[in-house]
Amino acid sequence: MPGGGGSERAVALRDESVTTEGKQEGKPNKAEATEVPAAVTYTPIGVIHSEHRRPQETPIQPVYARGCKGWAEILPQYAEGLKDLDGFSHLLLLYHFHRAGEPQLTVVPFTDNQPRGLFSTRHPRRPNPIGLSLVRLVRVEGTILHLDDVDILDGTPLLDIKPYVPRFERAENATGGWTETVDDSTASRRGRRGFQAGRGQP
Amino acid sequence: MPGGGGSERAVALRDESVTTEGKQEGKPNKAEATEVPAAVTYTPIGVIHSEHRRPQETPIQPVYARGCKGWAEILPQYAEGLKDLDGFSHLLLLYHFHRAGEPQLTVVPFTDNQPRGLFSTRHPRRPNPIGLSLVRLVRVEGTILHLDDVDILDGTPLLDIKPYVPRFERAENATGGWTETVDDSTASRRGRRGFQAGRGQP
Repeated sequence: MPGGGGSERAVALRDESVTTEGKQEGKPNKAEATEVPAAVTYTPIGVIHSEHRRPQETPIQPVYARGCKGWAEILPQYAEGLKDLDGFSHLLLLYHFHRAGEPQLTVVPFTDNQPRGLFSTRHPRRPNPIGLSLVRLVRVEGTILHLDDVDILDGTPLLDIKPYVPRFERAENATGGWTETVDDSTASRRGRRGFQAGRGQP
Repeated sequence: MPGGGGSERAVALRDESVTTEGKQEGKPNKAEATEVPAAVTYTPIGVIHSEHRRPQETPIQPVYARGCKGWAEILPQYAEGLKDLDGFSHLLLLYHFHRAGEPQLTVVPFTDNQPRGLFSTRHPRRPNPIGLSLVRLVRVEGTILHLDDVDILDGTPLLDIKPYVPRFERAENATGGWTETVDDSTASRRGRRGFQAGRGQP
């Protein structure tokens, strides 16, 4: 994740910045105040299309959206950046949850019935409502990316496309916290929500 | 990724919006123009700290940053949202590449010597410079998240924290496009960059 130059492009500093004190003993920067930029601004690179029009009938994750086709329409000025994508089977899409509503720091996850801390969930009502979906790339056709396993509402603004690189995405011995208290079949039933498998590809 | 309400919070529509025409035959919305919001604005929820001060010596991915300790300092107003995080072994951090420099649609990846389309790489010079790292969560201490496998520059603004949920992150039969033309040991050597293993934990 290193950066090249020193430009602060796309960082829109507001009048006030938020300052926190580094409180960690024996850590770098312990005596320095940390300046947090008050806002960053991004411009969508395209739009995601799917058969999902109603949030309450939209699968909550790609793993519960097998057979849900969709496509991403990339603005023409970004076409050059799509080169070499076609060899990848999966993409990580970052997008703006444009219908998330107000953020909530405690939510009841769609797969659970207990209130949980927002950051321990993938719920859309986040302070910064950025969505992340691991979708299958079916085909690239000009500036259209044909997708499968799409758990994303029709009309969602797309912020970034990252290739899924198998050697980068390994998490060894991962444990899933509270999600392990919900069995796979219950999670799947709740996670699919109103989505009917027959509506998409079998 | 469904949303609840209909509020457009955090979407800052500029005077002009970008309009594209749906060109897909037989797809939803084929006759409708798609409105892409021209900008979205996010406010960082905290800052990431690490031993990495120089972009050119920072590992390019967590898989090449084993033993690189760091921590995320979350602003106190988001403390409630951290509940239940402590059962997870891994987190997906979304952050702003604050030193990425100007975007480039064609880049030479750090692990390769060929120019590639930006969106087929994880290079930071992205139109929307959002970084994604899969890090290990060592311990939660109040609003401090102690982390390992940190490939993130010290002082990076944090935008979101998502739990790594093993059942959500599966990509079956994934293929890695051009990245498969670079062997693992070459990718590892290039990917670690100037990082010296001895500087962090063994």
